[in-house]
Amino acid sequence: MELTVYLAGQIHDDWRDQLKESAKQKGLPLNFVAPQTNHDRSDDIGEAILGDQPGNLYRDDAASSINNLRTQVLMQKSDVVIALFGEKYKQWNTAMDASTAIALNKPTIIVRPESLIHPLKELSNKANVTVETVDQALEVLGYIFE
Amino acid sequence: MELTVYLAGQIHDDWRDQLKESAKQKGLPLNFVAPQTNHDRSDDIGEAILGDQPGNLYRDDAASSINNLRTQVLMQKSDVVIALFGEKYKQWNTAMDASTAIALNKPTIIVRPESLIHPLKELSNKANVTVETVDQALEVLGYIFE
Amino acid sequence: MELTVYLAGQIHDDWRDQLKESAKQKGLPLNFVAPQTNHDRSDDIGEAILGDQPGNLYRDDAASSINNLRTQVLMQKSDVVIALFGEKYKQWNTAMDASTAIALNKPTIIVRPESLIHPLKELSNKANVTVETVDQALEVLGYIFE
Amino acid sequence: MELTVYLAGQIHDDWRDQLKESAKQKGLPLNFVAPQTNHDRSDDIGEAILGDQPGNLYRDDAASSINNLRTQVLMQKSDVVIALFGEKYKQWNTAMDASTAIALNKPTIIVRPESLIHPLKELSNKANVTVETVDQALEVLGYIFE
Amino acid sequence: MELTVYLAGQIHDDWRDQLKESAKQKGLPLNFVAPQTNHDRSDDIGEAILGDQPGNLYRDDAASSINNLRTQVLMQKSDVVIALFGEKYKQWNTAMDASTAIALNKPTIIVRPESLIHPLKELSNKANVTVETVDQALEVLGYIFE
Amino acid sequence: MELTVYLAGQIHDDWRDQLKESAKQKGLPLNFVAPQTNHDRSDDIGEAILGDQPGNLYRDDAASSINNLRTQVLMQKSDVVIALFGEKYKQWNTAMDASTAIALNKPTIIVRPESLIHPLKELSNKANVTVETVDQALEVLGYIFE
Amino acid sequence: MELTVYLAGQIHDDWRDQLKESAKQKGLPLNFVAPQTNHDRSDDIGEAILGDQPGNLYRDDAASSINNLRTQVLMQKSDVVIALFGEKYKQWNTAMDASTAIALNKPTIIVRPESLIHPLKELSNKANVTVETVDQALEVLGYIFE
Amino acid sequence: MELTVYLAGQIHDDWRDQLKESAKQKGLPLNFVAPQTNHDRSDDIGEAILGDQPGNLYRDDAASSINNLRTQVLMQKSDVVIALFGEKYKQWNTAMDASTAIALNKPTIIVRPESLIHPLKELSNKANVTVETVDQALEVLGYIFE
Repeated sequence: MELTVYLAGQIHDDWRDQLKESAKQKGLPLNFVAPQTNHDRSDDIGEAILGDQPGNLYRDDAASSINNLRTQVLMQKSDVVIALFGEKYKQWNTAMDASTAIALNKPTIIVRPESLIHPLKELSNKANVTVETVDQALEVLGYIFE
Repeated sequence: MELTVYLAGQIHDDWRDQLKESAKQKGLPLNFVAPQTNHDRSDDIGEAILGDQPGNLYRDDAASSINNLRTQVLMQKSDVVIALFGEKYKQWNTAMDASTAIALNKPTIIVRPESLIHPLKELSNKANVTVETVDQALEVLGYIFE
Repeated sequence: MELTVYLAGQIHDDWRDQLKESAKQKGLPLNFVAPQTNHDRSDDIGEAILGDQPGNLYRDDAASSINNLRTQVLMQKSDVVIALFGEKYKQWNTAMDASTAIALNKPTIIVRPESLIHPLKELSNKANVTVETVDQALEVLGYIFE
Repeated sequence: MELTVYLAGQIHDDWRDQLKESAKQKGLPLNFVAPQTNHDRSDDIGEAILGDQPGNLYRDDAASSINNLRTQVLMQKSDVVIALFGEKYKQWNTAMDASTAIALNKPTIIVRPESLIHPLKELSNKANVTVETVDQALEVLGYIFE
Repeated sequence: MELTVYLAGQIHDDWRDQLKESAKQKGLPLNFVAPQTNHDRSDDIGEAILGDQPGNLYRDDAASSINNLRTQVLMQKSDVVIALFGEKYKQWNTAMDASTAIALNKPTIIVRPESLIHPLKELSNKANVTVETVDQALEVLGYIFE
Repeated sequence: MELTVYLAGQIHDDWRDQLKESAKQKGLPLNFVAPQTNHDRSDDIGEAILGDQPGNLYRDDAASSINNLRTQVLMQKSDVVIALFGEKYKQWNTAMDASTAIALNKPTIIVRPESLIHPLKELSNKANVTVETVDQALEVLGYIFE
Repeated sequence: MELTVYLAGQIHDDWRDQLKESAKQKGLPLNFVAPQTNHDRSDDIGEAILGDQPGNLYRDDAASSINNLRTQVLMQKSDVVIALFGEKYKQWNTAMDASTAIALNKPTIIVRPESLIHPLKELSNKANVTVETVDQALEVLGYIFE
Repeated sequence: MELTVYLAGQIHDDWRDQLKESAKQKGLPLNFVAPQTNHDRSDDIGEAILGDQPGNLYRDDAASSINNLRTQVLMQKSDVVIALFGEKYKQWNTAMDASTAIALNKPTIIVRPESLIHPLKELSNKANVTVETVDQALEVLGYIFE
């Protein structure tokens, strides 16, 4: 049995690569999918495909329509969702992806530092599990295969 | 026909009262429900009912379990959801409520200032309508009754 | 038992008023809801609430977001959907409303002239009943109360 | 990960073959399914299997029942739907397929020329993405695999 | 609390009237809905509304489309379904209504004589309760209010 | 806004009456529904309606089919479920009702003494809120109306 | 693409074997599943596994519980359902399987002789396609692969 | 066709290994999944991943959140659920898993000794089949492949 895992969260560093490398070392039968992690590409994708838009609102809406299609396809293929929150950025997409996953009955793990306990308390309470590090999230997934 | 409207968003000022007053003046047949808007009460409700908890994590989890039950009951009773975002606070509960509403096929209006276009772009794109003021959200609801 | 009926179809003449008058004369316990039937208002509603948009594409998208919210609210309140097709206009909204209703298991009646049998054949086959006049649709609804 | 794509739209030219060829050249792992694209076969299939029918209404209903079964099977197998609209034909099946896909939470891309912005505005607003060319639709799908 | 009860079953005698009378005498807060119980009207309704059809197959299909719309509306309004089977008639509509109700999670009571135990065994096993008389079915409903 | 509350749990003492009395004193707009609380009636109901059964297995199955119909009707009418666990009895029906409510997205409160923390830990974790007394459960419901 | 087809209908002759042979000759990529077709085994399965039962009612209920589990597993694995009706037998299981499939949005083909048009008219109207021979049903399936 | 079977029930002896061995000897194409069967590991998993907790309530809640994620993932992958009840232990997780499976339309077999007929009567009545031994459960699964 292989599981497909959607990795929601910021796209400003390489946490997903580290997670994949760690999963590989542990020999876990996991496939990972994720939002577009090239930040510029993610912001530009609307105009890249649809052409110039008349202002930031329209440029952002064009990009988000394509990002949302991508996420919808990949999340529907997923068995589990990991959502990473950190101290930087607003991360409303992460909250959106985690909440959507929970509403669709996708088992969901939230990763967040101790400093975010309070602002994430309601979302943490709805998720299956909340941990503080990506490694802990992977331990949770590893536990499924024990 | 009356509609019940869930008002998601921050609980630090009286925007809901203004909205209700405005709806009343327009004669719109709307009932409003909302999260607990007394901030201290919302944070204390876990320990108020369940007793002292051994630290902030547990205190917050106790409160959030009761806040989440409240939201689940009231959102299931709602026909429309309005989610207000502002420039202050992390507002992950607002993102969670809006995302959950959308996943449950509840018609959803997002209210956010121009400065938040970019960080909210994916969530705005999934909502039915995004406006900049609470009055505009009410105009959208009024349009249903025309 | 009262039923709420969503009246999908073109908004260029007063067929809904005639239907309502006829239902009233027959004493049928029906409430009717519908899309915005003031055509200019329907096209203008986006800019009326959201302000001027930078071109027709954006003006139309703004209007449609609000029209779609209205339809979603009202169709969720409905027990039956009547969708009227005529020989004029593209009527893709009518096809969209009827198809959505069918996918949501809302009992659906299509009204179309004989000349449209062929292009509507797949949609007619998926609807519960297809008739040629609005009066026939009302007879079908009356039959529920016999 | 391979994706199955349902190609809704007119069946009067070879746009699907061009799309498939283009997908192949780009090396995208896509499988395509579609309605019957032989127009005569699509119209005749009812009588071909069920025998002569007593008039056009019945001939069309027989054909459409089989076409609808085909579409239902194939759309349920699909991960994404592309719906192409052009300037010719009524294309109510295209509107029906796109609307059904959206109601079933299938990620959906609409392709339509600029001239159809206005009549398709509500359906475009409900779809994930609207583009003007089939190549753009393929770029959107390619973006999922980046 | 009032309950709405759909009464599926043959339409050749007045068992529904007896049931309603008995419910009234017991003071149970039940509303009853049912298929068209005038057998000729049920068979004629297609041609009565849609006009003459070219043969029995088409006449029957026209009638059934309207009967099915009626049943779909009324069953969606129901809280419980009673399905009566007897020794006469094929009663495939009764089997269809009971099976549909069960698939939709409507609590369902089957009434059948001892002689039909064997041919109804799988359907009985899927229903909530199987009894032998209409009075027993009413006792089951009465038990809900104890 | 009134809420209907299903009260799952043992039927050996009058905890439901105390809860109702307490809700009344607090002026909470709650309606309560519950399984049959007369224990003998609950065990006898199968034979009472269906006649003598050939042994305990069959007597129990007959009774449970009618008890399950009752619960299904009443839980579908409910907005919230309270499930009380105590130290006596196996209480598998309580576990069944709570688990079913959670799977159906009914907001659920578990009441259990401290001694049952361990054996109920997975079910508690899935419920919205777990408290130790019926009064606390009522405080949670009261919080919805603040 | 391979499709799995559930073959509902009587189990008194070898129509399924003929269908499978015919599908094989046509090279259609179809897998077939079905109820237990050994009639005695189907009737005996309850007592065979659970031991002697105290009468026909209980013997039949035991068998049907196992037959229903089998059907539920196999129908959930199926992409299409074919339901064959003939002139003999009550065939309420066939009606139950077809109705369940339709309620679960499984594309469904009914096969019935001309003599059964009238008693099956409502079920035929709800199915996707109704044909008169098993070969025609196979032609419909073959059309999906054209 | 292979089936995946979730084995709910106590984790204090090796009944699952015996079942798997027996399935292997019969050549049944079954894959088995289950909760964590190492009891200490199951109780410790919360603190093992999340670190020390401030008391038994919190230790148990931490463990149960991870056990529940595991069960949710594996049950969603399953085609059938077997739930074993014995005379020891409270077994509320077994009741929870069986009830959840039934609510999600997973075909479910309950295994319980004769002594538990009465306390399990409602849950048995909702399951597809109830047997007394694990071997009988396997016979039921074997019957699917006949």
